[in-house]
Amino acid sequence: MVAALSEAELLARIFPRLAMDAGHSAATLLGPGDDAAIISAPDARTVISIDTQVQDQDFRLTWPNGYCTTGFDVGWKAAAQNLSDINAMGARATSMVVSLTLPPDTPVAWVEQLADGLTAGIRELGASGCSVAGGDLGRGREISVTVAVLGTLDGGQPVLRSGARPGDVLALAGTAGRAAAGLALLESPVQVGRLDPQQRSLVDLQCRPVPPLAAGPAARAAGATAMLDVSDGLLRDGNRIALASSVCVDLDPDSLDLLAAALEPAADLLHTDAGTWLLGGGEDHGLLATFPPDVQLPPGFTAIGSVQALGIDEGPRVTIAGRAADTGGWDHFAD
Amino acid sequence: MVAALSEAELLARIFPRLAMDAGHSAATLLGPGDDAAIISAPDARTVISIDTQVQDQDFRLTWPNGYCTTGFDVGWKAAAQNLSDINAMGARATSMVVSLTLPPDTPVAWVEQLADGLTAGIRELGASGCSVAGGDLGRGREISVTVAVLGTLDGGQPVLRSGARPGDVLALAGTAGRAAAGLALLESPVQVGRLDPQQRSLVDLQCRPVPPLAAGPAARAAGATAMLDVSDGLLRDGNRIALASSVCVDLDPDSLDLLAAALEPAADLLHTDAGTWLLGGGEDHGLLATFPPDVQLPPGFTAIGSVQALGIDEGPRVTIAGRAADTGGWDHFAD
Repeated sequence: MVAALSEAELLARIFPRLAMDAGHSAATLLGPGDDAAIISAPDARTVISIDTQVQDQDFRLTWPNGYCTTGFDVGWKAAAQNLSDINAMGARATSMVVSLTLPPDTPVAWVEQLADGLTAGIRELGASGCSVAGGDLGRGREISVTVAVLGTLDGGQPVLRSGARPGDVLALAGTAGRAAAGLALLESPVQVGRLDPQQRSLVDLQCRPVPPLAAGPAARAAGATAMLDVSDGLLRDGNRIALASSVCVDLDPDSLDLLAAALEPAADLLHTDAGTWLLGGGEDHGLLATFPPDVQLPPGFTAIGSVQALGIDEGPRVTIAGRAADTGGWDHFAD
Repeated sequence: MVAALSEAELLARIFPRLAMDAGHSAATLLGPGDDAAIISAPDARTVISIDTQVQDQDFRLTWPNGYCTTGFDVGWKAAAQNLSDINAMGARATSMVVSLTLPPDTPVAWVEQLADGLTAGIRELGASGCSVAGGDLGRGREISVTVAVLGTLDGGQPVLRSGARPGDVLALAGTAGRAAAGLALLESPVQVGRLDPQQRSLVDLQCRPVPPLAAGPAARAAGATAMLDVSDGLLRDGNRIALASSVCVDLDPDSLDLLAAALEPAADLLHTDAGTWLLGGGEDHGLLATFPPDVQLPPGFTAIGSVQALGIDEGPRVTIAGRAADTGGWDHFAD
């Protein structure tokens, strides 16, 4: 249990597991050990985002289907979620700082796994040059993991939500709806040991999402006009581009059918509708971006719709083949 | 209650209260509304730190002495703690991102006060040019506030813990032991309404610390060789300089007596020893720094000891007039 260790002893168990070797910390000019870290910002700008995972809100230690969330899962997901926010700006991550809140009875091995998961997430997702530069440890009644991530645009301009123009192509990189399907499987009575490999892969994607990190900077380089990461579902996140850009975001039903196909077996198992996961499910952390119509989509992106001008008396919105799409996705506070 | 609002509605209540007007956000190139913020880093480096406050660990909503912690207190303290970490490097803060975890029954007004406290802390502590550039909202069973703060060294070199040299003067900026005295008063049965103004000021300092923000960059400019902020007590934090610099940090008992004098009335009230607060109490967020002996101490600093070479077979340590000082201060995990 972490209560058996001093803060210094616990840090001594964690630090060696974080990717702080020279090969992975080119941007970290000063790492842990002082009151603050110092990170290189070569183009005189720093991109920053912050994200928190809380036990029983963002993950359960034991799920209804019997799966036990590992420290590795939580560390990986903390890395993935935050790296995705940097990716969504068309930037690449340079550094993270981590604040851990731990109940006193948290096993030390669980915390070590969390550090391993953070490191593995950073490396295996392809965020080379990024490392953990510092952090903070404290007690609480529930596990809470906050990461602040820094990134660089390498001299380029960020891709905002507000630049989509009528006529643009709407494209998706990465998967959509799979993490939501995985969440439904975790919450179901169908025990994890009875899932087939395809169903199990959906659970894995919920626990350890795989954002397409190369796609963000590639989209920026290709001239993407707007971009965000799909953390709350295609409808809600599409609506954010629509609102910020004052346009209509129209989804192509044939493209949606193709995306939904991968979700059908799990939907059949749970007697539910794959479309709900596809349109309302976030946490795959794919990228939704818009490109001028004459641009060749960068590798990893697939066209799934278009951007259209607002008609008279029409507000920004998401449609499917021109018809109103129901709002969905996940709202943290609405009951 | 926050549960009655959507995330967007709650953000709409918070954002107008954060210091995001042009006069206070010179460094924020892109603020809230996208997946990440963009902050200016004029000398191609960013200083970063992260810190979390958790309900019932770092504050109680209602204390034994009857004082009720306001959202304003928690917001102010979040700003102060984080600004102090940047100050301790000799840097100045440029930006913050904030992650809030809130139980569903948290009053919306409490959260609005928290935003007001953050803004007031930044402004009244003198962190002009700093603003809140973004954040994250989520649910939890307990209130948790994490701030990541960015800063700039304006082209200078950071002041680390490792540069103290034998012969240096040890100096303190800000107060010491007062926040610990305030904590003891909050935890005591003496009701807050019965405290005299001097005792009440100690409670206020625990709830809304006042780190000496001008002193960090001034110490750097004056040639400070080592520095940190006193967050865990003079002994523990002095020991950190001793360890990092491989020296002995010697405290002057006459200086300690002067510092303790301000704590005596409260110590008498609670029938305890002011020295324990002075040596072991953190959270005033004063600065402990070492300067070459020929340097005139910058405004705000008072000499409280000296740096001495280690004798043969001696380890880095803190002494008082050459005699061993008991270790003290606050350890998050040790029981």
